[in-house]
Amino acid sequence: MQAFLVFQSDFGMADGAVSAMKGVAYSVDPSLVISDITHEITPYNIFEASYRLFQTLPYWPANTVFVSVVDPGVGTSRQSVIARTAGGQYIVTPNNGTLTHIAAFLGITELRLIEEQRNRLKNSEASYTFYGRDVYAYTGARLAAGLISFEEVGPRLEMDDLVSLDLYGATLKGSSVTGQIDILDVRFGSLWTSIPFETFNALGISFGDYTEVRIFRESSLVYINQITYGRSFADVMVGMPVLYMNSVGHMALAINQGSFARAYNIGTGSPWTIVLSRVRGNLR
Amino acid sequence: MQAFLVFQSDFGMADGAVSAMKGVAYSVDPSLVISDITHEITPYNIFEASYRLFQTLPYWPANTVFVSVVDPGVGTSRQSVIARTAGGQYIVTPNNGTLTHIAAFLGITELRLIEEQRNRLKNSEASYTFYGRDVYAYTGARLAAGLISFEEVGPRLEMDDLVSLDLYGATLKGSSVTGQIDILDVRFGSLWTSIPFETFNALGISFGDYTEVRIFRESSLVYINQITYGRSFADVMVGMPVLYMNSVGHMALAINQGSFARAYNIGTGSPWTIVLSRVRGNLR
Amino acid sequence: MQAFLVFQSDFGMADGAVSAMKGVAYSVDPSLVISDITHEITPYNIFEASYRLFQTLPYWPANTVFVSVVDPGVGTSRQSVIARTAGGQYIVTPNNGTLTHIAAFLGITELRLIEEQRNRLKNSEASYTFYGRDVYAYTGARLAAGLISFEEVGPRLEMDDLVSLDLYGATLKGSSVTGQIDILDVRFGSLWTSIPFETFNALGISFGDYTEVRIFRESSLVYINQITYGRSFADVMVGMPVLYMNSVGHMALAINQGSFARAYNIGTGSPWTIVLSRVRGNLR
Repeated sequence: MQAFLVFQSDFGMADGAVSAMKGVAYSVDPSLVISDITHEITPYNIFEASYRLFQTLPYWPANTVFVSVVDPGVGTSRQSVIARTAGGQYIVTPNNGTLTHIAAFLGITELRLIEEQRNRLKNSEASYTFYGRDVYAYTGARLAAGLISFEEVGPRLEMDDLVSLDLYGATLKGSSVTGQIDILDVRFGSLWTSIPFETFNALGISFGDYTEVRIFRESSLVYINQITYGRSFADVMVGMPVLYMNSVGHMALAINQGSFARAYNIGTGSPWTIVLSRVRGNLR
Repeated sequence: MQAFLVFQSDFGMADGAVSAMKGVAYSVDPSLVISDITHEITPYNIFEASYRLFQTLPYWPANTVFVSVVDPGVGTSRQSVIARTAGGQYIVTPNNGTLTHIAAFLGITELRLIEEQRNRLKNSEASYTFYGRDVYAYTGARLAAGLISFEEVGPRLEMDDLVSLDLYGATLKGSSVTGQIDILDVRFGSLWTSIPFETFNALGISFGDYTEVRIFRESSLVYINQITYGRSFADVMVGMPVLYMNSVGHMALAINQGSFARAYNIGTGSPWTIVLSRVRGNLR
Repeated sequence: MQAFLVFQSDFGMADGAVSAMKGVAYSVDPSLVISDITHEITPYNIFEASYRLFQTLPYWPANTVFVSVVDPGVGTSRQSVIARTAGGQYIVTPNNGTLTHIAAFLGITELRLIEEQRNRLKNSEASYTFYGRDVYAYTGARLAAGLISFEEVGPRLEMDDLVSLDLYGATLKGSSVTGQIDILDVRFGSLWTSIPFETFNALGISFGDYTEVRIFRESSLVYINQITYGRSFADVMVGMPVLYMNSVGHMALAINQGSFARAYNIGTGSPWTIVLSRVRGNLR
């Protein structure tokens, strides 16, 4: 039976760091099947790391072991942990917020501390800066290969011990729903919001209707328009904006064959609020 | 026996889209061998997608299944198809011109429509924007794994149904051959033309001879020079231009250890014409 | 038993070159396990290629075959070789300095010439520009698959035949050690020096002590400061510089969550010298 080990990091692919991790993993068990989410997480951006796990993990088989290394606190007393998800997958990561979206949207059933003294590559004790190679890849590979059980990794932690980032979510009020711009569909410049389809759907807006979209940076209004709510980009002409449900079930904004983020200089994270409102007398 | 599934897209590797596709494929059959051509196709650039398939496909084993997702028309009525090549490989793709080079240079023996209702990931019906994950990766994986036959995917299409881009080719006239600049050897800035070696060879130019090279943007001459025809970059000094046959058997222009495209601001596609001419009295 | 074939090049991942090499390898033996170090080596930069092999190779199993293609001399009379390392791994590469760090730090036990006529993909004789596909991937795959032995590849070369780049190393003199800035930890902008921990350690500096750091471009002093010697970035405040031992056992300079290279415009290679000195009366 294939055992999957899937890596994610902010290391980039331009040097040898990722390959050193894979070499460690294959040395543990040559029969592992190794894959990657991405190594282009913005350096130190824990929110992005958390989001990319949420975006991909549901599509991988049970028992897949993910190793996510975005670790600005490497060398501090931050814990190293393994989480078991509701879907029976495992995530090896620093306990720094990387598990936020998984815990909120998919569920974590158990969290264990990695006892680092017992779970590190032989002869790596002098190295303090590459836990990804020396602890996380090594331990993830041993777990995936069945050389160590989840229980043997270290003691059970309480769910209260899980470090989580703030999630904005979405607020429905009257004929409007308010959310945050979480992240970009990087290559295409679409804005992915924190507003779930279900919350938006309560506004009673149908495919083809216009929706009023307002985007704020802090308290400044930086974008206002009435935009077609469509199934997909192709429901509007090339160059026109469209509101749609993205591939993780949230509301998103795109320009058909353009970049919404670049067109209007929109960013992501807590300063960026978006408000979607039903248009009075929307007759289509 | 290993079954190969090879992905290509314009998604980039910075977010989780590619990994979601791979997770879907491994969930269909964990024993698949998954690889990539590239995910850095210029967004929406169907010509590039078509060219990269042509550049790589001949080197992969028969029965390899390629999934190519450059899909500006996602959500329109554009068809999803699978082509069987003369070499016995399969390509899963939107029917939007992605198969142009394969059809022209390598041969397609049969084309079938993917009936999307029957060939999509369970519970993905509400998603309209990620056919790569929900239809193409899923169907490609099932075909590679032998869970569905080519014939079962959907009805046979006529070759006339195949959407193709215009290909410029090459025109031999007197002592000159005219072609188009198709694409760049991206990292090195070499110009790859549409002129096959055989057509150029009819000019009777030998290794070491000078060849007159003229490059036009629309009707404006933007470059003219006499350039050595060599086997390889190293046949000229560092910093000097060279005309050579590239790794797909077409004529190309490079600067040894430099970038021809950047040096002279040369682009690709229909506006860019190149004329290669025998130099009168070329005595070497 | 899994046979590993690991690629490295300066080709980038934006076109089809890397995938053509992998297709060739899988066509030789579909059961190979294929992975990558990086394909983002700076074009023509042999030093970087050599360094990335040094950084990753120790973590891969014995018998792994590496194929490294940074080949500015493609088409010249430069040799193609295979080296066997002290750890029992193989490296297929042009003999152009790519083996410098491996020879100096890990050891090469035997070097053989690749007889190119006998060791190239069938029907590739007309191609002079893509040895990576036609000779190196093909030969590396055959070696990894056991279809050809190391001895059968071609005649044994003397160690004197090995082309090597100059390595700066480190010089200890009084209370100072002098080295070169070899390379960057690309994504994080840390400076990795040629100074081994053991040489630095002779200065008698302890964790938490200040160390005087001077950086020269040619003979110009471009940076001078007293910097904390720490185990890791987190031993200093965010935004502060730190001197530490990196993941290959050399001394390095970083800014915690910043980029030292960008902050002070520091580059790499022979113009860049670094001097680390004990601070008189360092009382902590």
